[in-house]
Amino acid sequence: MSRLRPSRRSAVAPFMAMETLRDARRLERAGRRIIHMELGEPGAPVPRLARAAAEAALASGRLGYGEAMGEAALRARIARHYQTRYGVEVPPDRVIVTTGSSGAFMLTLLAAFDPGARIAVTAPGYPAYANLLSSLGLEAAPLPVDAATRFAPTAAILEAAHREKPLDGALLMSPANPTGAMIDAGELARICAYCEAAGIVFISDEIYHGLEYAVPAETALRFSKSAIVVNSFSKYYAMTGWRLGWLVAPEELMRPLERLQQSLAICAPTISQHAALAVFDATDELEENRAAYARNRALLMARLPQMGLDRFAPPDGAFYIYADVSAFTGDSMAFCRRMLAEAGVAATPGLDFDPQRGATKARFSYAGSEAEVAEGVARLAAWLPQARL
Amino acid sequence: MSRLRPSRRSAVAPFMAMETLRDARRLERAGRRIIHMELGEPGAPVPRLARAAAEAALASGRLGYGEAMGEAALRARIARHYQTRYGVEVPPDRVIVTTGSSGAFMLTLLAAFDPGARIAVTAPGYPAYANLLSSLGLEAAPLPVDAATRFAPTAAILEAAHREKPLDGALLMSPANPTGAMIDAGELARICAYCEAAGIVFISDEIYHGLEYAVPAETALRFSKSAIVVNSFSKYYAMTGWRLGWLVAPEELMRPLERLQQSLAICAPTISQHAALAVFDATDELEENRAAYARNRALLMARLPQMGLDRFAPPDGAFYIYADVSAFTGDSMAFCRRMLAEAGVAATPGLDFDPQRGATKARFSYAGSEAEVAEGVARLAAWLPQARL
Repeated sequence: MSRLRPSRRSAVAPFMAMETLRDARRLERAGRRIIHMELGEPGAPVPRLARAAAEAALASGRLGYGEAMGEAALRARIARHYQTRYGVEVPPDRVIVTTGSSGAFMLTLLAAFDPGARIAVTAPGYPAYANLLSSLGLEAAPLPVDAATRFAPTAAILEAAHREKPLDGALLMSPANPTGAMIDAGELARICAYCEAAGIVFISDEIYHGLEYAVPAETALRFSKSAIVVNSFSKYYAMTGWRLGWLVAPEELMRPLERLQQSLAICAPTISQHAALAVFDATDELEENRAAYARNRALLMARLPQMGLDRFAPPDGAFYIYADVSAFTGDSMAFCRRMLAEAGVAATPGLDFDPQRGATKARFSYAGSEAEVAEGVARLAAWLPQARL
Repeated sequence: MSRLRPSRRSAVAPFMAMETLRDARRLERAGRRIIHMELGEPGAPVPRLARAAAEAALASGRLGYGEAMGEAALRARIARHYQTRYGVEVPPDRVIVTTGSSGAFMLTLLAAFDPGARIAVTAPGYPAYANLLSSLGLEAAPLPVDAATRFAPTAAILEAAHREKPLDGALLMSPANPTGAMIDAGELARICAYCEAAGIVFISDEIYHGLEYAVPAETALRFSKSAIVVNSFSKYYAMTGWRLGWLVAPEELMRPLERLQQSLAICAPTISQHAALAVFDATDELEENRAAYARNRALLMARLPQMGLDRFAPPDGAFYIYADVSAFTGDSMAFCRRMLAEAGVAATPGLDFDPQRGATKARFSYAGSEAEVAEGVARLAAWLPQARL
C-alpha cells in the first residue's frame, strides 16, 4: 500500500488557540468545567435581531446557493455602514461577502500576489497570517513591534523593512490580535500613503473595529484608494460560528476576486447572510456587549498586576490581554497546558503569535461573559502562586 | 495613485453557472420570472429535521466557533454513515467537517500536493477543479471522456495519461457533474488499485452519492486505504447554502489537514453542523426528493429528444442532463445567453465544463421542483424552434 506524503506547504504551524480549544473540549466531555480565555469568542449569545432574521430565513425554507459576491441587499448594507460609521463612500459593487475573514484572506492573497511575494505582518501577530501566507507560497516578513510604539506598526517600521528587503504587501490589523494595540488615525494615514507611494499592497484587517475602549478606529478606506479592507461579523457583531466576513477591494481586483470566489467557495453561507443583514440594527445589544467587555478589561487590568502579571501591551481595543509571563515561565506552551490541566483555565501561549519572543507571553481573552472572566480571575489568583516553581 | 495588478494565478476562468445565476438574479430583480436550470440547486426546501435542529440551535443561542475538525458528534455520525450506507468501517477521527466540498478541496489539494503537481480531471468535468488547481499552482491534466466509456473515466484512460506524462493525483467524480455518468463498482476498484500501484493520490469526489437512478454508487473507501473521499451536504441532503461538506483522509494526512483547517477556515459553520447532524435521519423526505428528481429526469429524457436535443450523456446519477446542442449552435455561451434573455430559462454553457468541446453542449439541471422543470420544458419547447437560426 502506498503511503501519502503530506505536501511541504502543509507543514504550517498549528494554531495553538484552536489546539487549546480542542484540548479544553476534551476535558469538558470528561466532565470538567473549563474557563475559556483561549479564544476570541464573544460570551454574548447571537444578537436577538440576527437570531430573528435567521429564524425567518429558516421558516422560508429557501436557503440555497447565493451569488458568489454575496446577497445584493447585504452588500448594499455593508456599503452603507461605511457611510454611517466612518463617513466614507463605498459603492456596493466593491464589497464581497466572504466565508469569515478567513475566506477574505484566501481570496485577497490569491488575487493580489503570486508565489514568492513578501508580505509584512507584525510579530506578535495573528498566527493564521503566517500559515496562510506560507501555504500559498508567500513569504511572511515579520515586523517586530514592542512597547516603543505601543505595539503598533508604523510607516517608519514598514519603510525600514522595505529598505532591508523589498515588500510586495503589508497585512496589518488594528485593533490588533493578540495585543489589543491600535494604529492611530495619523499613523494609519502615513501607512496608507507610504504603501501607495512604494507600491506595497496594503491589506487592512479591521476585524476588531467596533471594539475600542478609548478612541474609535479609522478605516484605511478613508486614506487610500488602493487599500484592501477585510472585516468580519465574528467579533463586534458576535457571530463567530456563522463564518461570515467581507472585504472591500479596489475596482481592478473585483473581477479576479469574483472568479476566485466562484470556484473556491461558491458563496458564503446563506443563513448567515440573512442574519448579518439584521445585525447592523442590533446596536443597543452590541453596545451592551462592548460595555461588558470594557468591564472585563478593567477587572483584568486591575487584578492581573496583583498576581504578578503586571506587564502587558496596551489593550486599546479587541478583547485580549497579551501578558508577559516571564516571572512564571520560560515556556508559555507548558505553562498554558498546566494552567488548563490544573486551574481549568484555557489561555493561548504567546508562541502562537510570536515564535521568537512568545515563549514568555500568554494571551488572555476577555470576550467571555463577566461571570466567566471573574471566575477565570479567581482561578488564576489561586493557581498562579504555585505556578511560579 | 498606484493601481493594483491582479496576480497571474487569479486569471482563472469564470464559473459560468455562477455567472448565469448572477445574470438571472438581475433579471428577477427587474421583475422577470426565470426558470433556474443552471445550478445544482435542489428545489426542495431544507429537510424538516434539519430545519428543526437549526431552530433548536438558534434557540440555544450558542453558535460560536467549533473545533477545527468539526463537532465530535457530527464526525461520529458521518463515520457511522459509512457503516450503514456502504458497510465500510471509518474511524471518526479520519473525518473532517469542511466548509462545503469547496473547503474540502482546498484543504486536500494543499495538504497532498506541492506546486507543479499534475492532477488528472475529466473533460467534461466540474469547472471549479481546474480553477482551484491552477490557483494553487497545480496542473490539471485533462482526461477526455466520451460515449466510448459512457462518459466515465476508467483505469485504462488514467494509465494512458500517466504513461504520456506522469500524474501525481487524480480527482474524479461519480456520479459526475455535468454528465451524470457513473463509474461502476468494478471500474472504481480498478482505478483505486491502479492509483495505489502507480503512487497516484486518488481523490474521489462523492458529492452526488445518494442521487443514483439505477445502481447505488460505491465509495472509494471500500477499495482503497489511501483514497481521499470528499462529500457534501449540498446535493442529496439538499443543504447547498449551508456550506457544509466533509472529507475522509488517510491517517498520515490528518494532522497536516487539521493544521491547514485551523488557519485557513478556523471551523465549518456551526449552525450548519447542528442541522447536518439531524439530516441523516431525514431519509423519508430525502427519498421523496430523489423520486421527484427521477420524475424530472424521465420528463427531460422523454421531451428533450422531441425538441431536437436527442444526444446526451447517460444521466445515471446526479441531477443534470449534458446535452449536445450542435443542431442549434456552435457557441453554447451565446446560445445560453439568448435562452435566458428570450425564454427566461437559465442553463449552463458546456464551455464551463469542457473548454475544448463544450461549445456545442449545454447542461440542464433538473434539481428544481417538478413544476419548475415542467415550465422549463414548456418554455424550451416553445423557444427552441426559433433558436435554430
